[in-house]
Amino acid sequence: MTNTWLITNVRQGNGPHVDRKVDVSIVDGRIAAIGPDLPREPGVTPEDGAGALLLPGFVEGHTHLDKTLWGMRWYRNEVGPKLTDRIENERRYRAQTGHDAGAQSLALARAFLEAGTTRLRTHVDIDTDAGLRHLEGVLATRETLRDMLDLQIVAFPQSGLLGRPGTDALLARALQAGADVLGALDPALIDGDPVASLNLTFELAQRHGKPIDIHLHEPGELGAFTLGLLLDRVEALGMQGRVVVSHAFCLGALPEPQRDALLARLADLRVALLTTAPSSTPVPPLKACLQHGVTLFGGNDGIRDTWTPYGSPDMLERAMHIAARYGLRRDDDLALAFDCVSSVAAQACGFGDYGLQAGARADLVLLDADTLAHAMVARPPRKLVVSNGRVVARNGAYAAGAIEA
Amino acid sequence: MTNTWLITNVRQGNGPHVDRKVDVSIVDGRIAAIGPDLPREPGVTPEDGAGALLLPGFVEGHTHLDKTLWGMRWYRNEVGPKLTDRIENERRYRAQTGHDAGAQSLALARAFLEAGTTRLRTHVDIDTDAGLRHLEGVLATRETLRDMLDLQIVAFPQSGLLGRPGTDALLARALQAGADVLGALDPALIDGDPVASLNLTFELAQRHGKPIDIHLHEPGELGAFTLGLLLDRVEALGMQGRVVVSHAFCLGALPEPQRDALLARLADLRVALLTTAPSSTPVPPLKACLQHGVTLFGGNDGIRDTWTPYGSPDMLERAMHIAARYGLRRDDDLALAFDCVSSVAAQACGFGDYGLQAGARADLVLLDADTLAHAMVARPPRKLVVSNGRVVARNGAYAAGAIEA
Repeated sequence: MTNTWLITNVRQGNGPHVDRKVDVSIVDGRIAAIGPDLPREPGVTPEDGAGALLLPGFVEGHTHLDKTLWGMRWYRNEVGPKLTDRIENERRYRAQTGHDAGAQSLALARAFLEAGTTRLRTHVDIDTDAGLRHLEGVLATRETLRDMLDLQIVAFPQSGLLGRPGTDALLARALQAGADVLGALDPALIDGDPVASLNLTFELAQRHGKPIDIHLHEPGELGAFTLGLLLDRVEALGMQGRVVVSHAFCLGALPEPQRDALLARLADLRVALLTTAPSSTPVPPLKACLQHGVTLFGGNDGIRDTWTPYGSPDMLERAMHIAARYGLRRDDDLALAFDCVSSVAAQACGFGDYGLQAGARADLVLLDADTLAHAMVARPPRKLVVSNGRVVARNGAYAAGAIEA
Repeated sequence: MTNTWLITNVRQGNGPHVDRKVDVSIVDGRIAAIGPDLPREPGVTPEDGAGALLLPGFVEGHTHLDKTLWGMRWYRNEVGPKLTDRIENERRYRAQTGHDAGAQSLALARAFLEAGTTRLRTHVDIDTDAGLRHLEGVLATRETLRDMLDLQIVAFPQSGLLGRPGTDALLARALQAGADVLGALDPALIDGDPVASLNLTFELAQRHGKPIDIHLHEPGELGAFTLGLLLDRVEALGMQGRVVVSHAFCLGALPEPQRDALLARLADLRVALLTTAPSSTPVPPLKACLQHGVTLFGGNDGIRDTWTPYGSPDMLERAMHIAARYGLRRDDDLALAFDCVSSVAAQACGFGDYGLQAGARADLVLLDADTLAHAMVARPPRKLVVSNGRVVARNGAYAAGAIEA
């Protein structure tokens, strides 16, 4: 049992059991047991958790590692207000700077690990200017961190699917080259033809046997219309449980009966929703989603890039934003926001063997906080981050140089 | 010139001038000069700013120091959803625990200083259960920190003005005992009689020669109605420039012509607005306020108390929330959000001698960030906080034990 490891004296749970002291035993990168007073194996020196709060490794459900300027000199944002302004501005920036998506994605992915995220879905730009260059950079990052970070890649047509001929062929190549999921973007407002755009997206996904994760920023009635077209195709093509709709702002701004009819259909077709919980935009309603059985999970979107100055690789901060966006104050409600960046995100993205139970991959975070809600608002440095049974960070500092591939 | 002090090698400004290296000379607690290569006084050892970004001390425009549970064991929030649930829950909590407003306000005020806030307006509960007990605690905190923190106290009837007989007399005593501003709360929804409530508030304020800061959570048309009644009284009684309306959620949810008519009247009567920029509630529109000449400034509201798990004594974090709430992304726009917790807040609250110019009180923050926007999103520890010409914190740690009164 050379791979046996024991972490003692940590606190688990949220609520009456938050003071339950447990040990965690890890064998071959997996949780073997969690419970009080686990037996010490001979020859194994236990790690003393010193009463820290035990949380599962966090899950980032939607970011753009390839875009980030993390760690670079501050980018001064002077961008216009429209979505197309931001797309064109980014295109110019890349042409001028030769932005290195490999180096940048690696820098930010390490920061995610440092803060306790061990599973991550990133969208990667595929377009006719950059070709597969960003994908290649992020694939290199995935390879470097393969023993620590579960990194899912969405091949994302940031400039639209229909407007630039050849984009569909690039997406196909991206899916063959290692992208896990097919992305898409505003079939009406960007592509100008929701039916043709969605048909091509679903055709590509089916041909390559990949799930879909679509950015749908389209507001109100237009978004509802596009969402309806999308759900028709999920149903007709048997893609239940294989589609995520990111943002879905429209669901935050529809009359309740119309919204609830869409939620019922989303639940029925097992289409999940992703929110970044932006404070200036309508968002899908968390509690109504829970009532209807719709999966709603969370992510940052871009982090410090030419689009936005905001975002953080600390998913506890995102959980706090989600909780605040939904007006949650009670501890049991804050736990729902944490679920969005942990168990629910893992389930929605299909990250397996997740959680704090025997048999799951040993992805653990220890930090000094009284409770989960306290952790979300105080966000103390992570005392210990374990991924796949390995120590990847201690006291907020990345400790994994030696085990990168 | 024994009180002369020089800080060298800091960066000032936002924009093209952010790399302008300057020195700051401080004489008798005030800024004597800011500029490049200031002359060294003989015998004065300069403080090397090491290229840090120079910001003015921050201003908290609305908090509740007396309520906070800062530094205590985590309070598990199981409160109901209504405003009255929260008021009654807090009353029960205090009765059970004998909550010490003096110790708690001091702990949080020190944390504010540590993070760079040198001027602060706090609302202090005055009610028929607690009498002036909370006021006495916060007055003690003000005395302890008098050389470092400008602390303004609002005598705040948290349980309403009309519902509990004797509250008006307690407020009068509070104003005589050292409260600077008269508070008020939802004249319609809490007091049930907007005319009688506002009349009594204005009568009290006039009798004691004090300004007013009213919590107005009342939504939509009701809030607009109450706000109209308030503005009538400001005009009739000559209280121009002496009234703040905190929250003013109604201004975020009115048809534009109606909203703009109220903004024009607010500007004309120099009534300022305070927002905490909550992400789950309508808020007064920042850019429309600027266009109309309405003063809009920022604050936390309560911080980790029985009402809310959120909030932080770091006003850079509040500035970030404000910027995000208004959908601001450009660096020049983020600077508007910073203004809400610095110069605009100082002007709205009447904190004098404020700013980064010769003659102002020497309230300075140094931190490692490329630009102001970077400081707002990264929120690094404060390398140095100077208040009233004195060092109050270094490297994020309070350093002022020796100079507390």
